[in-house]
Amino acid sequence: MSLALVTPFRKDIEEWKEAINALDPDIEVFIYPEIPHSKQVLAALLWNHPENIFTQFPHLRWVSSLGAGVDHIISDQHLPDDVVVTRIVDDELAIEMTRYLVMAVLSYQKNLFRYINAQAQKKWAPHPARKNLKIGVLGLGFLGSHVAKALSQLSFDVLGYAASEKKLKGVTTFHGEQQLPDFLTHLDVLINLLPLTPKTNGILGMNLFQKFTRPVYLINVARGAHVVENDLLAALENRQLSGAMLDVFDVEPLPDNHPFWTHPNITVTPHVASWTNPVAAVTQLVENYRRMRSGQKLLNEIQRNREY
Amino acid sequence: MSLALVTPFRKDIEEWKEAINALDPDIEVFIYPEIPHSKQVLAALLWNHPENIFTQFPHLRWVSSLGAGVDHIISDQHLPDDVVVTRIVDDELAIEMTRYLVMAVLSYQKNLFRYINAQAQKKWAPHPARKNLKIGVLGLGFLGSHVAKALSQLSFDVLGYAASEKKLKGVTTFHGEQQLPDFLTHLDVLINLLPLTPKTNGILGMNLFQKFTRPVYLINVARGAHVVENDLLAALENRQLSGAMLDVFDVEPLPDNHPFWTHPNITVTPHVASWTNPVAAVTQLVENYRRMRSGQKLLNEIQRNREY
Repeated sequence: MSLALVTPFRKDIEEWKEAINALDPDIEVFIYPEIPHSKQVLAALLWNHPENIFTQFPHLRWVSSLGAGVDHIISDQHLPDDVVVTRIVDDELAIEMTRYLVMAVLSYQKNLFRYINAQAQKKWAPHPARKNLKIGVLGLGFLGSHVAKALSQLSFDVLGYAASEKKLKGVTTFHGEQQLPDFLTHLDVLINLLPLTPKTNGILGMNLFQKFTRPVYLINVARGAHVVENDLLAALENRQLSGAMLDVFDVEPLPDNHPFWTHPNITVTPHVASWTNPVAAVTQLVENYRRMRSGQKLLNEIQRNREY
Repeated sequence: MSLALVTPFRKDIEEWKEAINALDPDIEVFIYPEIPHSKQVLAALLWNHPENIFTQFPHLRWVSSLGAGVDHIISDQHLPDDVVVTRIVDDELAIEMTRYLVMAVLSYQKNLFRYINAQAQKKWAPHPARKNLKIGVLGLGFLGSHVAKALSQLSFDVLGYAASEKKLKGVTTFHGEQQLPDFLTHLDVLINLLPLTPKTNGILGMNLFQKFTRPVYLINVARGAHVVENDLLAALENRQLSGAMLDVFDVEPLPDNHPFWTHPNITVTPHVASWTNPVAAVTQLVENYRRMRSGQKLLNEIQRNREY
């Protein structure tokens, strides 16, 4: 009976192992690929796992994502139907994600990048802050709701969109594919926090950008694959987008020759908007391990039939 | 019976005159120095007024600042004792000031400037965000309370300091000169929102910086004269300060040869953190003009015996 940690980020994963054993020294934790008896693996914590990992653990009962996203797990066609999938729900992750997004919105509203450029030229050039911005949050799950609330507390006009109906205080909400165009026509800023699924893959492309009625500032902190990168460049060119702050990319690290690096209206940050804090996260992982052993329902379980 | 508008910013002031007359066309508004009968001036709206303005209006009964600050008025020794002083209390001003300050705190916490520099070199270099920052707000008036609340809603540890005792939910408060050193020893970030008075002039100097126990990031949006500019440069040199975001300066526009422009740890913005919105502000000005005429107590009156 053991738990396998599977991720290409070998350096960080030691921290997770230590944190789990600090809470419960009896849990046998192994770091992939050093798994002595793969038939004894009952649980696996995954992040960007290699292909065919599931065929290596025939007695797997539970897998958890090491982050909020689970698309890397549920999109794997070899995931057995009877394996329970959970994810980490972490307040600190929501707090840090919200801080990044509030920073992104405010630096756009207040023209911060304009002033940084002006300072390099010793130019004193005040410019009115943007007024009456309407900010759309695409995806109103744990993270999306958190950021929508924070922006509303800063007196912004916040709109939210989710696949199914959601009510949030201070936020005008839209839902379902039918209401998506209506949501998009109002916006000055669009924040993407959607989960990555077959339906949302490439959603930030020309088909969506065409529905804007004025230039929109795009902030993507979800997944690189949500964005059709060439469409984003085209939309900046023809002013469907006024600019973008991007934290996630199709290929990371962003390749040297990528046009995003040098685009005057794109700000690149190196996938730092938020991260899961092992110490906070292991509490729910250890609790779930115990629940799995005693046959109880797990915390933060994913309903696998929901595509999005 | 007339109202005088007195400011060196001649271009903007036309907007104020129009906004006042849009609300009440019967108020005679003149823009200094074009005042036909200075003995008829009962009220004056001032911003950085010239010397001896008060001797020119012998029947003056009320003066209002055109902004939140009143130091430029109450520090004038020629201000007659029986003239009522008011200031503008403007929600929009507080909202915009708060947004600027939240942006300043978050761009420091999240290393935004580091990433902007990295992008210029096409360098993918993630760096941990700063953790457990303690943020101090110097001055807990209308603006200070507003920003302290907003930072606390973003889950920051917020401390506040004011001359007299204040209680604010979610904020650890200090007051009086005796508690100032205690307040300062806790900080990682210091926001200055003090009014400018003889007591606070030059308060952000070596005497204060010496009380920090670790490098502090300084954000000044109040007045340039709060800062001893050479002490700030020295404190950056010897790491009492880790950096600064400055919106106000001794001399504005900041002169071409000023060392702040090129300091790697100083961000300069051109006095844009917030501004008073004439349309919002004139409502209370017109109301106060009516109250003055009918002998009622004015809104947002300043107690002139309070030095700070």
